[in-house]
Amino acid sequence: MRMNEQLRQAIGAWSAVLGDEYVKTQDRLIDQYARSTSPWGTRPAAVLFPVSTEQVQQIVKIASEHLVPLYPISRGRNWGYGDACAPTDGQVIVDLGRMNRILEHDSQLGYVVVEAGVTQKQLHDYLRQHKTSLWMDSTGAGLEASLVGNTLDRGFGHTRCGDHYLNTCGMQVVLPDGSILDTGFGHYSGAKAHRVYRYGVGPMLDGLFCQSNFGIVTRIGLWVMPRPEAFSAFFFAAPHDADLADLIDRLQPLRLQGLLQSTIHIGNDLRVLSSRIRYPWGLTAGKTPLPDDVRQKLRRSYRIGAWNGLGGIYGTRATVRAIQDAVRKALRGYRLQFVGDPTITMAQTAAWLLRRLGLGRRLTDLLGLLKPPYDLLKGIPSDDALTGAGWRLRDPSKPQPLDPRDTNAGLIWVSPVLPSRGALARELMDLVTPIYLKHGFDPLVTFTMITERAMIGVTNIAFDKTLPDEVAHAQACYEELITTLIPAGYIPYRTGPQGYAKLSAQPSVFWDVTQQIKRLLDPKGIISPGRYIPHQVRPQ
Amino acid sequence: MRMNEQLRQAIGAWSAVLGDEYVKTQDRLIDQYARSTSPWGTRPAAVLFPVSTEQVQQIVKIASEHLVPLYPISRGRNWGYGDACAPTDGQVIVDLGRMNRILEHDSQLGYVVVEAGVTQKQLHDYLRQHKTSLWMDSTGAGLEASLVGNTLDRGFGHTRCGDHYLNTCGMQVVLPDGSILDTGFGHYSGAKAHRVYRYGVGPMLDGLFCQSNFGIVTRIGLWVMPRPEAFSAFFFAAPHDADLADLIDRLQPLRLQGLLQSTIHIGNDLRVLSSRIRYPWGLTAGKTPLPDDVRQKLRRSYRIGAWNGLGGIYGTRATVRAIQDAVRKALRGYRLQFVGDPTITMAQTAAWLLRRLGLGRRLTDLLGLLKPPYDLLKGIPSDDALTGAGWRLRDPSKPQPLDPRDTNAGLIWVSPVLPSRGALARELMDLVTPIYLKHGFDPLVTFTMITERAMIGVTNIAFDKTLPDEVAHAQACYEELITTLIPAGYIPYRTGPQGYAKLSAQPSVFWDVTQQIKRLLDPKGIISPGRYIPHQVRPQ
Repeated sequence: MRMNEQLRQAIGAWSAVLGDEYVKTQDRLIDQYARSTSPWGTRPAAVLFPVSTEQVQQIVKIASEHLVPLYPISRGRNWGYGDACAPTDGQVIVDLGRMNRILEHDSQLGYVVVEAGVTQKQLHDYLRQHKTSLWMDSTGAGLEASLVGNTLDRGFGHTRCGDHYLNTCGMQVVLPDGSILDTGFGHYSGAKAHRVYRYGVGPMLDGLFCQSNFGIVTRIGLWVMPRPEAFSAFFFAAPHDADLADLIDRLQPLRLQGLLQSTIHIGNDLRVLSSRIRYPWGLTAGKTPLPDDVRQKLRRSYRIGAWNGLGGIYGTRATVRAIQDAVRKALRGYRLQFVGDPTITMAQTAAWLLRRLGLGRRLTDLLGLLKPPYDLLKGIPSDDALTGAGWRLRDPSKPQPLDPRDTNAGLIWVSPVLPSRGALARELMDLVTPIYLKHGFDPLVTFTMITERAMIGVTNIAFDKTLPDEVAHAQACYEELITTLIPAGYIPYRTGPQGYAKLSAQPSVFWDVTQQIKRLLDPKGIISPGRYIPHQVRPQ
Repeated sequence: MRMNEQLRQAIGAWSAVLGDEYVKTQDRLIDQYARSTSPWGTRPAAVLFPVSTEQVQQIVKIASEHLVPLYPISRGRNWGYGDACAPTDGQVIVDLGRMNRILEHDSQLGYVVVEAGVTQKQLHDYLRQHKTSLWMDSTGAGLEASLVGNTLDRGFGHTRCGDHYLNTCGMQVVLPDGSILDTGFGHYSGAKAHRVYRYGVGPMLDGLFCQSNFGIVTRIGLWVMPRPEAFSAFFFAAPHDADLADLIDRLQPLRLQGLLQSTIHIGNDLRVLSSRIRYPWGLTAGKTPLPDDVRQKLRRSYRIGAWNGLGGIYGTRATVRAIQDAVRKALRGYRLQFVGDPTITMAQTAAWLLRRLGLGRRLTDLLGLLKPPYDLLKGIPSDDALTGAGWRLRDPSKPQPLDPRDTNAGLIWVSPVLPSRGALARELMDLVTPIYLKHGFDPLVTFTMITERAMIGVTNIAFDKTLPDEVAHAQACYEELITTLIPAGYIPYRTGPQGYAKLSAQPSVFWDVTQQIKRLLDPKGIISPGRYIPHQVRPQ
């Protein structure tokens, strides 16, 4: 690509700091980083691979000197929310993937300290290798997805530590002027409580560095949970779409009372199907969205409900039993199953034996359906959940994507937050379903009870990026969803770059203050310009 | 007092907005606000009593115009941490006590929305009157202490919602320019999740407004807990001072596993004694600190341990039983008692019957000791815990103080944060005890396991403000404590004005950033100058 003089000088300076091999401008690599699951990919001007906080400081100073914008990524696996792509073309990606050390762990207090490039798989392996008896929390974004990037976008997982930002303690941030900010108690030398008490003393600054562009977070403390004495997963299903509100209203009190401490995920039939199969092009003769009769048929043959949920119970044997009783009572009338390690082991053994006899397909299928979410409730990451991204791909020869970009899987999340109230979940479904159907898409939906009081309605447009028409429909569908939901009070918890302007479309003191802080900390607009914080200053 | 021209003009303008009766400059009233439990009281120039957010906006604009600094208080009952006093003389107190509306409650989702002047008693009465079945969380600061002020200083209580800032959701803040910032989703009109999901979208700004001076918080959402199906308090005691570390190490795993969800308070014998009696001047012939033999004797006669703790268990009948089992197992060998409502009722009845017979003093005493903390575990506020402030008063005629300033009770908290690790609690005790004793004070100590991983070591200097010598000793004791603890890594979670400079004595990017934000949002330094954020700008 053509390079302006400032960029050329910056690249020279970066090469001197990082070494030539860690400053990439080759088209082939740039092409890789420019790919997106969304229709809105952008092209970076270069990609830098620092290995240390000191190098990040140097990178930032050089960027500031030459006025070249940077876009830091942890692992760039922000699937469906922009992936590795900056909001605009021409930003220089700072890929923190080489900064992948796990610096500390404490089994008694339940925390780890990780650099920005550490993956889910790495931490999981590390906790096992060090025989820590600690369970991490994982998202469904796959083995190679990062911990820090996900946390800074306020992602969530499945265990008691499922609200990722809530389970951070102490950030190291390289500010746009190259200085290092340690949040919490981190700026006191030798502070005993640095990794166990988030607030420090004085104002808490950590919140500034989520969903923003005020600095580059290079290191965080992460709370992880102790392996409980006893663990039970529970799976439940409701036969009718109309059961959704009732399900939520029955579970919410258990969450609010602190009896259920994991996030609870309640997915519709389409969500569950998409994790096992591709869209049934044969059964529908190519028609989209999925006709109701086919949907009913698939529901029956995979023995899934209109709504299907799961959660984890952690505690002593006696508390787990007592909470199981409470769940049983709450979900009376619904299909409910408790699954523990012995069940899984027995089923695996049985399936293995049956397979040797050429039997047991159904059990194997069932295990395939249960095992990955069961593992996630124990914080074990896998690539399995990613398969949903391939739902609408036409080409049956393509394998299920581990990197959805490899198969042209199109993916756009639309994930509004709502109170854990059945009637509101129903209202949200009634808002989004007709929009999805109208544009030819299937409403894949999960309601995640992320905290004691709130749910995130995780919906996504799954489309085939090889078909320009479908891509256009996906864009139109997104546009209609977002412009319907925000005025209705269902605000997304997170978006890709295409959503930022929608979020800040209404003038508000809130966005004004964030812009002021941006100008204060990053007067030259070096870090991720356009990310969440509105780029242009509104006239006062 | 003499008044400069700017102040005179501001007072004229405020009077026009608030009405003369809500702008006070009379010496008698100023004297009241200038009193402090600490040796470092300051004198305000005036006291304003706005009744609405709009009036607060006007107050701020007028202050900005005339360059008069404001010091907002909710109720001014920041006992031992500065009380109602600004960091410096001459600030104008904005007493938000008239803004005491409870604007909203939601029993199903477990939250309330309160103005800044709402007291603990008000919310408690409100929740009962509205038959909400919600339990609030209370501190020991008394019935008339505020919720918002305490929360913004990151105070804590006793229940599952004991970490107050963690249980806020959505702030309304009047910024120094008079504009209104709504945090979280509050700036989206009609956002459904405003009071149930803290983060909103984009950076989280709430943390900026705790322990700082960036604006005046006029309203917050507060999470409260549903009345549980079953509740049990547990009280435990350890005979020897050396048992402290073991106690903590046994309880910490239950906290980390989420089995115990309340804060757990472990107080030493002196802390418990101070809540029931004054310093035994007779037994010690006026000698301080408390001689060991007298201490042992009092321990025996009040049947208290060297360490005495309590916590709450909330859940279904079965989970409470199961958690009781876990606590019993963990604390084997220590005195442990579970107390539920039936026990309390029976004991009260028995005590009443015995009193009618002229008997039962001991039971009445025991009840007096148990009932207030038992109530706090259910979020019921009382004035009882305040009595500890009077520990060292000489004059026996003075009643136990409800407002400690009425009796010249001297009170300075020194409350470092530490990981929930027995060995560190021991180390902290070994650091602070000789300092307290050296200056003639008794180390009154509580370790509060505030979260799953951290404790706050709550210690305080109790002294008699009528004795200049003792006041001087208290100041010297504070000085030595704080200058010993910070370098040792035991950083206070909160301080009064006398501690601010100590906290920011070491240059750091952290304090630089807070100063920059202060200059950004409050360029004229109108709001609480000197509060936590260092007042003077360090040369870059």
